[in-house]
Amino acid sequence: MDKINIERPTLVVDKERAQRNIRKMLEKAQKSTVLFRPHFKTHQSAGVGEWFKDYGIASIAVSSVDMAIYFAQSSWKDITIAFPVNIREIAKINTLASQMNLNLLVESVESIDFLIKNLKYPVGVWIKIDVGYGRAGVPWHNIDYIVILAKKIQESKKLYFCGLLTHAGHTYYAKSVKEIRQIHRDSVSNLTKIKNKLLETGINQIKLSIGDTPSCSLVNDFSGVDEIRPGNFIFYDLRQLSIGSCTEDEIAVRVACPVVAKHRERNEVIIYGGAAHLSKDFMMRDDGTKIFGYVSPITGDGWGPLLYNCYVASVSQDHGIIKTDKLYFEKIKIGDILLIAPVHSCLAANLLKDFITLEGEIIRR
Amino acid sequence: MDKINIERPTLVVDKERAQRNIRKMLEKAQKSTVLFRPHFKTHQSAGVGEWFKDYGIASIAVSSVDMAIYFAQSSWKDITIAFPVNIREIAKINTLASQMNLNLLVESVESIDFLIKNLKYPVGVWIKIDVGYGRAGVPWHNIDYIVILAKKIQESKKLYFCGLLTHAGHTYYAKSVKEIRQIHRDSVSNLTKIKNKLLETGINQIKLSIGDTPSCSLVNDFSGVDEIRPGNFIFYDLRQLSIGSCTEDEIAVRVACPVVAKHRERNEVIIYGGAAHLSKDFMMRDDGTKIFGYVSPITGDGWGPLLYNCYVASVSQDHGIIKTDKLYFEKIKIGDILLIAPVHSCLAANLLKDFITLEGEIIRR
Repeated sequence: MDKINIERPTLVVDKERAQRNIRKMLEKAQKSTVLFRPHFKTHQSAGVGEWFKDYGIASIAVSSVDMAIYFAQSSWKDITIAFPVNIREIAKINTLASQMNLNLLVESVESIDFLIKNLKYPVGVWIKIDVGYGRAGVPWHNIDYIVILAKKIQESKKLYFCGLLTHAGHTYYAKSVKEIRQIHRDSVSNLTKIKNKLLETGINQIKLSIGDTPSCSLVNDFSGVDEIRPGNFIFYDLRQLSIGSCTEDEIAVRVACPVVAKHRERNEVIIYGGAAHLSKDFMMRDDGTKIFGYVSPITGDGWGPLLYNCYVASVSQDHGIIKTDKLYFEKIKIGDILLIAPVHSCLAANLLKDFITLEGEIIRR
Repeated sequence: MDKINIERPTLVVDKERAQRNIRKMLEKAQKSTVLFRPHFKTHQSAGVGEWFKDYGIASIAVSSVDMAIYFAQSSWKDITIAFPVNIREIAKINTLASQMNLNLLVESVESIDFLIKNLKYPVGVWIKIDVGYGRAGVPWHNIDYIVILAKKIQESKKLYFCGLLTHAGHTYYAKSVKEIRQIHRDSVSNLTKIKNKLLETGINQIKLSIGDTPSCSLVNDFSGVDEIRPGNFIFYDLRQLSIGSCTEDEIAVRVACPVVAKHRERNEVIIYGGAAHLSKDFMMRDDGTKIFGYVSPITGDGWGPLLYNCYVASVSQDHGIIKTDKLYFEKIKIGDILLIAPVHSCLAANLLKDFITLEGEIIRR
């Protein structure tokens, strides 16, 4: 790591750790015989996508039509756009549907009607279910409405009904690993209730797809589920660490930031690396301190443990302020690189575009 | 506006308002006979840069070496990189310095020594002063250290001493317009004290440069100052509105986001438009509600007044949740475009790249 020349804020990926994270999730999926459909919104990188191909993975999820187009250009042929279908992009959706096994998410009669009227090629369709997160999806208890949607889909020749898909994002707010596992059990149980109801009404071949990284990381037995779509797990981050989804050792990225100034009177260091690189996502420490990232020391082959007394205390567009103690402050020199473990690796990766591996390989976006 | 086809989250610029904002600031600068050096980090767009050229503006500020390179490609020949010099980018700095009047910021002996040793072409150098914001810069009361820096600069043949530069970013936390004006007066007064001290020690030709949009917007008489570097003023945003730097009418941008889902039971609408488009910057309303943006209705030629009962209540990477009342909820349809006034236009513009004007002109980055 200390041999790589970094000039500006750069996402550094420990490829070995990332690949270990992929293997671990794949093996869990295989053990439960569920399809592993990784979500590529975390890295958004064709190069990183190749790492997945190396393990024989052929199905992916993305969060936008543009991302689907991007990965289609790298020969991905089975893509779920895991976002309520944006009907304004129907022209691009039709192009994608002509090229691959494309799956969309719906949660309203209006969207289904629009698709039936405007699709030129068949697509797979999942009904997005809200199992309690409160963001997108039909609330799981609105079973009558879900039946209406499923029937509409099944009656159409253009839409192929895949099943019920959810993102239990409320696991991110769970207070314990036990609670995350309980949320997963409740989700699957509620999805299964809907599935049974649909079966009763004569609709069959109903798959269940779950997505959140906390559940996928902390649950070992995916019984009842047909597909998992975790995304963040490839890199993990401080948020996942704080909720118990990963160990510190599994966090596979750091944002490398040059030191540009030091303020001895405050034990503060200014880095080139702010909201435009780390995002404005922060965590609140128990003592009320906002944390935008922790520093790890650079080692010969990567990085050392998180330094809890050396953190990004605030960010503006391009500046980050590192707060630390007197001892560590004196070790830092202007022109040094500080490695920051990000709070939210998806947002950092989205901002930083190109990555570099610990071996110095540049992975372009 | 209702004739423009928008498919995905897009920054819409009212060119007339933006140009009015430019003209107003330019006229104020001219009245006070200070140099108007707009900060281009807000728009980061060569196309928008041309609007400034139309008014005869030839000097700009940017916040990174990469941004300087980008604008150098559009023939800008007088650029201040208004960020503590990142010595790791010395090769690119040398290339820029060979092509233009390049100005850098320093705040330490270390950085100055590095520049003296490694610069191949002369550059202008400002000493960055912290007038109370507490981010970058030598604290204004450390006058002895500032004298050391200024002497070092003046002794060098490669460095041309420009003067003292500050960004009074604490105006963003001011509680009133009066307080912002007071911060400006204090800043200028403290910079002047340093200037006088430097004059006493035989250093002369010392310019003063100030930068924050709140001060530049709310102060009419820039006496004592030689240069102003506001950035955000071209677009303004909800933050500036909330601190009184601009009127609602002066906010020149909206983020256009497609509606993808509706949740009647909560009067919530899901838009394609999240942290990857608006950023995670938020404001806290007096009642404790987090606001990531307010919606404005679309009108034939642009947009109407902010709807304070229709706001972005939360964002994840690609999703935004709009909360509203029953009445407005019923007016919104899946596939509609909602226009969001962003909390922080610089971060939104940084994320959204290409812009579109109300006339439908696409401004590429």
